[in-house]
Amino acid sequence: MNVEIQNSRLEKFFNPASVAVIGASNTPFNLGATICNSLKHYIEFPGPVVAINRKAEAVSGYPGYSSVTDVPHDIDLAVIITPALVVPAFVKQCGEKGIRNIVIESAGFSEQGGEGKKLQKEIDGYAKQYGIRFLGPNCLGVMNNISRFCSFYGAYDGMMNAFNKTGGVSYVIQSGGIGVVIFESLMDDMQGINKMVSIGNKTDVDEADLLDYFNSDNTQVISMYLENVANGTKLMNVARRVRKPVMIFKSGRTEAGTAAALSHTAGMANNDVVFDSMCRQAGIIRLKSISELYSLPKMLTEMPLLRGNRIAAFTNSGAFGSISADMMTDAGLTIPRLAPETREKISKIKGVFNINNPVDIGPAPPQVYLDLIDIILAAPEVDGLLLMSSIWRDFIIDVIKEVIKMCKLYDKPAAIYTPNSISRIISVRKQFNIPIFDSLEEAVRALVVSHEQFRYLRKKEQ
Amino acid sequence: MNVEIQNSRLEKFFNPASVAVIGASNTPFNLGATICNSLKHYIEFPGPVVAINRKAEAVSGYPGYSSVTDVPHDIDLAVIITPALVVPAFVKQCGEKGIRNIVIESAGFSEQGGEGKKLQKEIDGYAKQYGIRFLGPNCLGVMNNISRFCSFYGAYDGMMNAFNKTGGVSYVIQSGGIGVVIFESLMDDMQGINKMVSIGNKTDVDEADLLDYFNSDNTQVISMYLENVANGTKLMNVARRVRKPVMIFKSGRTEAGTAAALSHTAGMANNDVVFDSMCRQAGIIRLKSISELYSLPKMLTEMPLLRGNRIAAFTNSGAFGSISADMMTDAGLTIPRLAPETREKISKIKGVFNINNPVDIGPAPPQVYLDLIDIILAAPEVDGLLLMSSIWRDFIIDVIKEVIKMCKLYDKPAAIYTPNSISRIISVRKQFNIPIFDSLEEAVRALVVSHEQFRYLRKKEQ
Repeated sequence: MNVEIQNSRLEKFFNPASVAVIGASNTPFNLGATICNSLKHYIEFPGPVVAINRKAEAVSGYPGYSSVTDVPHDIDLAVIITPALVVPAFVKQCGEKGIRNIVIESAGFSEQGGEGKKLQKEIDGYAKQYGIRFLGPNCLGVMNNISRFCSFYGAYDGMMNAFNKTGGVSYVIQSGGIGVVIFESLMDDMQGINKMVSIGNKTDVDEADLLDYFNSDNTQVISMYLENVANGTKLMNVARRVRKPVMIFKSGRTEAGTAAALSHTAGMANNDVVFDSMCRQAGIIRLKSISELYSLPKMLTEMPLLRGNRIAAFTNSGAFGSISADMMTDAGLTIPRLAPETREKISKIKGVFNINNPVDIGPAPPQVYLDLIDIILAAPEVDGLLLMSSIWRDFIIDVIKEVIKMCKLYDKPAAIYTPNSISRIISVRKQFNIPIFDSLEEAVRALVVSHEQFRYLRKKEQ
Repeated sequence: MNVEIQNSRLEKFFNPASVAVIGASNTPFNLGATICNSLKHYIEFPGPVVAINRKAEAVSGYPGYSSVTDVPHDIDLAVIITPALVVPAFVKQCGEKGIRNIVIESAGFSEQGGEGKKLQKEIDGYAKQYGIRFLGPNCLGVMNNISRFCSFYGAYDGMMNAFNKTGGVSYVIQSGGIGVVIFESLMDDMQGINKMVSIGNKTDVDEADLLDYFNSDNTQVISMYLENVANGTKLMNVARRVRKPVMIFKSGRTEAGTAAALSHTAGMANNDVVFDSMCRQAGIIRLKSISELYSLPKMLTEMPLLRGNRIAAFTNSGAFGSISADMMTDAGLTIPRLAPETREKISKIKGVFNINNPVDIGPAPPQVYLDLIDIILAAPEVDGLLLMSSIWRDFIIDVIKEVIKMCKLYDKPAAIYTPNSISRIISVRKQFNIPIFDSLEEAVRALVVSHEQFRYLRKKEQ
């Protein structure tokens, strides 16, 4: 299918004018009702919503019907959250009503084998017959922070806070549990969520389709959690034409991990070496941990890309010079000897303990920091900066703000870590909106990823 | 020297009855004055303190003298924080006064080569002549949370908070900067600091001496940051007889890291492979990051040791089952198939998605969690638990508290991670004093370290 046509077909998942929640009722612990409740009370979704249940009862103030075919107006998107057994019949009913986009949240399909696989075939048949695109089954569907729509069930206050903070990162996740961690963690970080899609068994719409979609919208960075890749060639072909950074964390690397993933989202085993080489060829950044899904994007949205691998380290604690030099060596970054001209300039500044790279200074006023960092960033032998100064006085925060400006001026990135407790780092990052990483490991990793993205882009442009 | 005699000689570093701060004055930015200020106003150190300076001026309310020999009472411990050039003369003066314990905080000795090495020789000569033991030079000296003594200069409010929270972990660090991160981070964790010693160039008292000391006091876990090991055989011999967990993070693993360390604390290059094998032989847990210095002790103080490597994983989010299985495989832990009896017991509980290990449950009430975890911990094919449940309802916190009790009952540890944001984890850990790790990586690592310590102990006991 043509990419533009497909993207416009997917659009109704993200921007539905009207929604039916099939299976929402007032029965205690009903999951569909939690979706209606979020739409009505947290998100204040602007379009009409209806609840479909046996008793045709209203839910969260939204009118109820016993069938979508009874709804007097058009429905853009249906969300099905019923027992698996009745899902095929509801898909058929949606087809008859003219609904062409469905989120199937119910579980109990291919991931459970036997009977579940039969039900899946029925759904696939109706989808084909009516030209329906669907997300799931076994998923949470869509969250769109721009249009203010969310089909996630069981969302609690903490998650709904995400709607108070927009941002440039869009997520494709194969598990709702990962969504929770991302939602919560981004509240402590720079960027909010742009959009998030939970794809579950991804029997129809998959990560490659969504990559195409996010390539065309206002997303800046695309971040994915996958348990399996069903069609590697498709994903690779799409990724190859995407210029935005694409990051993937994939579980199921080992035999034990794959076994667990299979019973979770019904995937197939992937050869990890093949997947790894696919990522490298297609310019996909392969993540090493779940936390990188939310910690790394800020390096790509807030800083210029790292054009070479020569890093100058700057610290006010000698220990971090040594520790970071070890880490950078392990990560394949180089710690160049500073040129005689650079060293001469630095030697004129008072309070410098070590004129070599890593540069190490003692207690000094803000101007000493700024003069030094300016010399380092200007040096032609330096491609980027690893800034490690503890916030021992509040002025360090102002220094960091100035360094961010310098980075833009010199078109060289800085990865920033302050040797303080994580709670101190989080509080400063939130209050002043500056990209400090939670750990030195993360900061070094951010440099690696930034340079990877630079090299991928250069390759793609050739 | 006999261990008991040496320990009693070191005792005066930790529990001095009286202290002289040599170099403390009212000159602006004087570092010695910050020590007097901490002792007087934050810590309220119970013994007499005097300031030694040219003008014999009082500092922070403590009387001033121009020489320690003028002080009318005995001095247990001298802290020297003057320019390097005059340090030897002050050491001699201390010797004449009968002071046998000195903390030399001044920098500018072996780590700067040439002239600095000469000054060091003079100090060594006087120390020998008068039978003085000294810490440093180029260090911060001692912090003792029990006797309420601290010789760290430049301490700020955030660090001094550490005195409000005692604990069982004692630290030997070769850099003050690492101390700051530990001080701050432990405020967000379970255990407070027992004692901390910053050893700097460690020309006299070294990490092995302090290991012996901490083996004899109320310390539960000994944690070290080292940039070099000057006498590996000595450290190894002491470590071999220590039964308390000993953990070391060492920087200077790579050429670049070693170069940075040399100019920081004047060490010598160590062969990393040799150091690694030394740790294994002496039963020292080698840490992989700075954060492990403060995150891992809680696994050893709050949980039984892991007696085998067979781990049951428990989660309320399928993704973490798969991700943790990958991680545990990488870490050399095994994820055993549950025995038929165990599976049968589990199958009688409603709401379980996956009866295999990792066990995966849906939304369920607290009793389901407790029944399940009880079955798992009781299973003979399981040595320990990896508990990964997000705090989606407050009752999860009560579940975790119960699990901690069960662990003691079954003598099997649980490593606990809640898939939530770090700030949520920290706030729950602090409020309820439960050992939750900041990340899944940390939790898995804690299991590995617990089992390492179990095996080391068994070996030492043989």
